[in-house]
Amino acid sequence: MDLNADLGEGFGAWRLGDDDALLDVVTSANVACGFHAGDPSTMYRVCRLAVEKGVVIGAQVGYRDLAGFGRRRIDYDHDELRDDILYQIGALEAFCRVTGDRVRYVKPHGALYNTAAVDVVQSSAVVAAVLAYDSALPVLCQPGSVLAARALDAGLTVIAEGFADRGYLPDGRLVPRSRPDALVHDPDEVVARAVRMAVDGEVVAVDGTVVPCPVRSICLHGDTPGAVRLAAAVRAGMAGQATVQAF
Amino acid sequence: MDLNADLGEGFGAWRLGDDDALLDVVTSANVACGFHAGDPSTMYRVCRLAVEKGVVIGAQVGYRDLAGFGRRRIDYDHDELRDDILYQIGALEAFCRVTGDRVRYVKPHGALYNTAAVDVVQSSAVVAAVLAYDSALPVLCQPGSVLAARALDAGLTVIAEGFADRGYLPDGRLVPRSRPDALVHDPDEVVARAVRMAVDGEVVAVDGTVVPCPVRSICLHGDTPGAVRLAAAVRAGMAGQATVQAF
Amino acid sequence: MDLNADLGEGFGAWRLGDDDALLDVVTSANVACGFHAGDPSTMYRVCRLAVEKGVVIGAQVGYRDLAGFGRRRIDYDHDELRDDILYQIGALEAFCRVTGDRVRYVKPHGALYNTAAVDVVQSSAVVAAVLAYDSALPVLCQPGSVLAARALDAGLTVIAEGFADRGYLPDGRLVPRSRPDALVHDPDEVVARAVRMAVDGEVVAVDGTVVPCPVRSICLHGDTPGAVRLAAAVRAGMAGQATVQAF
Amino acid sequence: MDLNADLGEGFGAWRLGDDDALLDVVTSANVACGFHAGDPSTMYRVCRLAVEKGVVIGAQVGYRDLAGFGRRRIDYDHDELRDDILYQIGALEAFCRVTGDRVRYVKPHGALYNTAAVDVVQSSAVVAAVLAYDSALPVLCQPGSVLAARALDAGLTVIAEGFADRGYLPDGRLVPRSRPDALVHDPDEVVARAVRMAVDGEVVAVDGTVVPCPVRSICLHGDTPGAVRLAAAVRAGMAGQATVQAF
Repeated sequence: MDLNADLGEGFGAWRLGDDDALLDVVTSANVACGFHAGDPSTMYRVCRLAVEKGVVIGAQVGYRDLAGFGRRRIDYDHDELRDDILYQIGALEAFCRVTGDRVRYVKPHGALYNTAAVDVVQSSAVVAAVLAYDSALPVLCQPGSVLAARALDAGLTVIAEGFADRGYLPDGRLVPRSRPDALVHDPDEVVARAVRMAVDGEVVAVDGTVVPCPVRSICLHGDTPGAVRLAAAVRAGMAGQATVQAF
Repeated sequence: MDLNADLGEGFGAWRLGDDDALLDVVTSANVACGFHAGDPSTMYRVCRLAVEKGVVIGAQVGYRDLAGFGRRRIDYDHDELRDDILYQIGALEAFCRVTGDRVRYVKPHGALYNTAAVDVVQSSAVVAAVLAYDSALPVLCQPGSVLAARALDAGLTVIAEGFADRGYLPDGRLVPRSRPDALVHDPDEVVARAVRMAVDGEVVAVDGTVVPCPVRSICLHGDTPGAVRLAAAVRAGMAGQATVQAF
Repeated sequence: MDLNADLGEGFGAWRLGDDDALLDVVTSANVACGFHAGDPSTMYRVCRLAVEKGVVIGAQVGYRDLAGFGRRRIDYDHDELRDDILYQIGALEAFCRVTGDRVRYVKPHGALYNTAAVDVVQSSAVVAAVLAYDSALPVLCQPGSVLAARALDAGLTVIAEGFADRGYLPDGRLVPRSRPDALVHDPDEVVARAVRMAVDGEVVAVDGTVVPCPVRSICLHGDTPGAVRLAAAVRAGMAGQATVQAF
Repeated sequence: MDLNADLGEGFGAWRLGDDDALLDVVTSANVACGFHAGDPSTMYRVCRLAVEKGVVIGAQVGYRDLAGFGRRRIDYDHDELRDDILYQIGALEAFCRVTGDRVRYVKPHGALYNTAAVDVVQSSAVVAAVLAYDSALPVLCQPGSVLAARALDAGLTVIAEGFADRGYLPDGRLVPRSRPDALVHDPDEVVARAVRMAVDGEVVAVDGTVVPCPVRSICLHGDTPGAVRLAAAVRAGMAGQATVQAF
């Protein structure tokens, strides 16, 4: 099981999350590429640390929206979005290259993640970018999403990811954030769910059903209070139960 | 002799210069990388056309200053500037890659060009970026500049460029822009000077002295009225007298 | 009848449209406020010229999206959008103040215009901004739009605008841009339609029906080839038939 | 004696400093206006809180440089800088207006503060902006600076500010930051120096000389660890010794 988290999400004088601490926990780092967050020096620093610690680097591509942190849906044209994504992958590649690695996967961020999960145009643009750049590059996304389907159709590798702190519906989809049971708040339960995903490939849905959850990566959050502690608890909880390593 | 020009200097809805026409004239294209100009879709388009026409692509790296078009000196730290340059090279590399080529050289833009020509910190940052990214990548700059000296010291290849439409001092440097004889306005004279640079490797200084001008590339401007016509005239003037090709 | 056009839509080194020529034609200027276009020096210059020529100044507020020129819908929160609009109105007010005038109306730009015409959240945010800033400030928008309705509900003044170069449906709405009859291409017909709107308050719909078109302002476009000539033709066509003046 | 601090220096998802806590300490708030920091919603929030707490609002104007937080000198033209400053003052004015107050003073930020203290072009641009906007608006700056001189020459009001945590030279200027005695680190000493500035209008220079320090405002820093505690200590230290109130 891989553990991924968003990293390098500061910008200039502003910091967000504790990159150093998270890099001791995760096995893959979704590095922000400058459009929703992530200045070049932060990208360089995170890549250097990731390489030192053996953490795999992925391009966390987002909308061009620093003020909105990439959390507001933007109605891009297909080609504009594809090109914005290519630009970001290339920019991150430079820092991977100078630190001795390369971009190993692509994960959309924020509203792009959510939109590409359901929208044909935006998921196609993500797929078109990855296909043009390097068809061997996996896409990290939700299983069952439109993005996953289109990526698979195009012959790309999909790395399915799960969320130990999110409620699941009996059909395997996430509980919408508008519902009160969207989030799992109890840290012990989050750890237990992560371990179950890793060991048994299943998750308990909000109605008590046990549903399959065949994921290869679990997403850990880094920008909330207590996030690093929870991430470390998940990692510790896996010890002796599942192998934690990047895909 | 190589002919270079700045290309892809629009941004979003805004256009600057006639990229298509210039790509029929130049042998190397300094493509703006998004910090002072150049959105991703424009970069993609220019790279595709350049590859089609056999024009060599270079990274025209600049300050992060869209509002100032990179023409205002900014007092960067060494590392921040190096990282901003790495980011831009990487971003352009993505579009070279998907169009079947790669970044072949680096040329600083605007105030960065002028500052790196005289400033130790900024020229070092340019050199550090190129060295880290690919030490085989040439730097296109003015012979005799601090940037040229530092690049050579670091073992980089320098492509010396000349300006057929700028006045030269007897010592081989450009006449400062503040002086009335800084610019050569007569198109025929510009063409004649370009040909002389290409054929004889020399230029007539403002005091009438003939001075050596051992350049491998001549910079053509694209963003002024009549620029494309003048560029084409320079190219035509070389026919039968000098081989026009990228370095 | 008022004639309005978008002005000051350049940014830094980039120009768009012919501000000077349009200022001789229009009676009200929708000045871009820096979020989708319009740098401070351009804003200052347009305000100075507008005041000199007796043209009324309005805040052409848009999404924060220079790369997309405000033409891509962005899913703002209500409060964020309201605050972005307040910011833009205030910024323009500074240039009105130093040139001896003030902001006289607000008109949303591009995708914000289109979205606020149909969307409750975004139209409410526009209304909330104007209401907070100055409840005497009119909103320039399409009659029958959600924005017009909410503005009227809130007690704001609405200035209804028409488009002489757009096809109308029999119910008075615009033909969607996806249809081939969305645009009126013949310049003479555009002029005739503008005059009929001004003199008779009506327009011929695409099915030949004559429908009421009770507008107080006609929007002229400035950023297409021939736009200034057409705008001038509309103005000339009104001579002797309708009084052309700002609301 | 007035106590001022920089506020509203977050941007979008990023926070910097503790605005709420500082607003309980200061008597005037230098509110960032969006160019080096400060998104519209943050500006609105800070203005609302400042008005509630009776804190005077000033425009903390800076270079257009979010990535550099306005800390890198930029070689602006006079007019461009003047216009960028006007834009920022106007934008803040909108939030003052809707919260029931107005912009009461202007203070340059970061590298603009430092540059305007010594540079004729940039200090003139600051003065030109304030003069054009409202010649009754005071400028908060260092006594003896080029900016103070030019502002006074132009008939503007200057509010002289001092720094309780900076070393002073015997001639009343600040010790350059490159020297080891540039900063006063001991919190008790900082408080004592602030009180002495307020009560006696003097400061002990690094060579032990007591020099006059006729300031009307003391600048408190808010973005370093312990900053709020130190600011509160300064305020508490003044109790019973000096009247703390905005100019």
